[in-house]
Amino acid sequence: MAMQPASPRESVARPPVEYNLALIGFGNVGLGLAEILSKKASLLREKFAADIRIVAICDLAKGSIADPVGFDPRVLLDHLEKKGDLKEFPASDKGWDAIETIENSSANVLVELSFTDLETGEPALSYMIRALELGMHVSTTNKGPAALHFPELLELSKTHGGAIGVEGTVMSGTPTLALGMNMLSAAGVTRIQGILNGTTNYILGQMENGVDYADALQDAQAKGYAEADPSGDVDGFDAAAKVVILANLAMGQNMTMKDVYRIGISGLTVAQIQSARLANQRWKLIATLENVNGRIQGSVKPVKLDASHPLYGIGGAANGVTYSTDLLGDITLIGPGAGRIETGYAIIGDILSFQRCSRHE
Amino acid sequence: MAMQPASPRESVARPPVEYNLALIGFGNVGLGLAEILSKKASLLREKFAADIRIVAICDLAKGSIADPVGFDPRVLLDHLEKKGDLKEFPASDKGWDAIETIENSSANVLVELSFTDLETGEPALSYMIRALELGMHVSTTNKGPAALHFPELLELSKTHGGAIGVEGTVMSGTPTLALGMNMLSAAGVTRIQGILNGTTNYILGQMENGVDYADALQDAQAKGYAEADPSGDVDGFDAAAKVVILANLAMGQNMTMKDVYRIGISGLTVAQIQSARLANQRWKLIATLENVNGRIQGSVKPVKLDASHPLYGIGGAANGVTYSTDLLGDITLIGPGAGRIETGYAIIGDILSFQRCSRHE
Repeated sequence: MAMQPASPRESVARPPVEYNLALIGFGNVGLGLAEILSKKASLLREKFAADIRIVAICDLAKGSIADPVGFDPRVLLDHLEKKGDLKEFPASDKGWDAIETIENSSANVLVELSFTDLETGEPALSYMIRALELGMHVSTTNKGPAALHFPELLELSKTHGGAIGVEGTVMSGTPTLALGMNMLSAAGVTRIQGILNGTTNYILGQMENGVDYADALQDAQAKGYAEADPSGDVDGFDAAAKVVILANLAMGQNMTMKDVYRIGISGLTVAQIQSARLANQRWKLIATLENVNGRIQGSVKPVKLDASHPLYGIGGAANGVTYSTDLLGDITLIGPGAGRIETGYAIIGDILSFQRCSRHE
Repeated sequence: MAMQPASPRESVARPPVEYNLALIGFGNVGLGLAEILSKKASLLREKFAADIRIVAICDLAKGSIADPVGFDPRVLLDHLEKKGDLKEFPASDKGWDAIETIENSSANVLVELSFTDLETGEPALSYMIRALELGMHVSTTNKGPAALHFPELLELSKTHGGAIGVEGTVMSGTPTLALGMNMLSAAGVTRIQGILNGTTNYILGQMENGVDYADALQDAQAKGYAEADPSGDVDGFDAAAKVVILANLAMGQNMTMKDVYRIGISGLTVAQIQSARLANQRWKLIATLENVNGRIQGSVKPVKLDASHPLYGIGGAANGVTYSTDLLGDITLIGPGAGRIETGYAIIGDILSFQRCSRHE
């Protein structure tokens, strides 16, 4: 071989594709995304031919700014730290609401990061529909629209030519959906089991150490894992939404939240948990999709796992999922389930998936 | 939303892309691939728009056949079972050697499954070069060319327009390289640790149960895990080749086999292994790529893992890999490391990656 070796990572020659982002919502995930871009924008351009910039932000509390030139994410973050909001931030346009931002900014990607509503999916759903109708790509970490209306959103994206990515709705930036939808779907996914809620996994871990439920919950709230109203986590709603997303995206179902059998962790006692521990077993809040009498059924409930179970060792706020497949048997993926940077990375993953045509590009 | 929900998995409308395969080598992996195609060819066509058929086979022992119409994989397998070889199998062309098969058959994909040579990569390397020069795609499970010459092969593929996939060289069909190269590469892979050889993991598990090294090895040979000459497994050569592949593909290095520090498992005693077990630790043959004084160094050696390590629980012949990343922390993937169907699936995964342009197609 006379040819010079070339690193596969340095040989992208195509001109970069521009991804101009409009962020609706600028909370933790948006801040994480801006931080990633402040450090990795040039790497993303050089290595992945993706020129990603923020051209609009619309946040109910922090204000709304837009500029076709794009914002320097480092300057944005510094300004926010000093001023607390973006109202004085220099921009060509200001004060647009979400729909105006989608329609009037120069963005070709909607990054939907507004609050999650698991009953209607709104207002995120309307934002996503509008962006898709305009032919924009959409990336979201919002479980509402993904759990409630994914098939319709996908259909819209196909009609108008945009793409839609929802990687961050399950296990933050851990590429759980990419694994299940792309890489394993030809292997025939027959069952999915997961620890999909880090807050409850953290609480159960504390209870293994003898801390009672109320104190463990308070501790999780102090650490920022659990909300002031913890019901979404401890009663299993958050995990149930992820079950619906996995069912519909990785198993081709048309499941809704109502279809998921759901029991939270509040009925578990320290005594139960510790006696399981003595028998080398662990109680975990397990999300399951499995074939019961010919139908895929979804559930979220506490399950006592043996030490040989692939999800047994997942501690703290980590998450994990086991895909059981026809051709490959069990494939388990373990990674972070939350976090500012970790969830911000899911948006990057979605964008790179929009343009990836082969594994070596 | 008035729109009818549509399953994301049933909405592919594009005409299927034809992948006409020439298999060089028709041993276990080739048989696994034929078996998968016998069951899943129509699903692959309908769901993934990939029309995959075998149009040529060249095997030193079983004979060489080619036909532009393609062979029914079920008929191929039944014939082989009855006759033991393909010499009487009806085909338009027969008796071609490997290069003739590549040059003269109607294949647009070389599936390189000949034997592995970790010193020269031959003869597979020459077959792959010829196919790439002709603009064909190449998919292989052969560690030789992947470990020794990947950058040159990638360069050739780019020059002539084919694609190259080597998913099956590490952890069989478990999408280890796709994870590291595509989905995590923007997250900044800083360290990789893995249990990449199932034979040694099986032997170490038996030794935990008190079986001594020689008996455990014999058992692994009886079960078909270990070769008659077990050195490739137990001395760590197989794992070292995978270290080189991971280094070059997932970390952008230019590593060679000689760069890998390598100690096998034959020095471990049952006493050592069992005393670790009593302390809730396990000896595993761990492949590592990590930054040592500013350089990525590769090693394969026995390591005593604590129970909190993500690879601690991997038992039997399973494999696992932990990617440590800048942005996501640790991501662990666990799945089969070998097997006829499991490795055959890696070829399917490569082919689907050749045409995948977005996660929802």
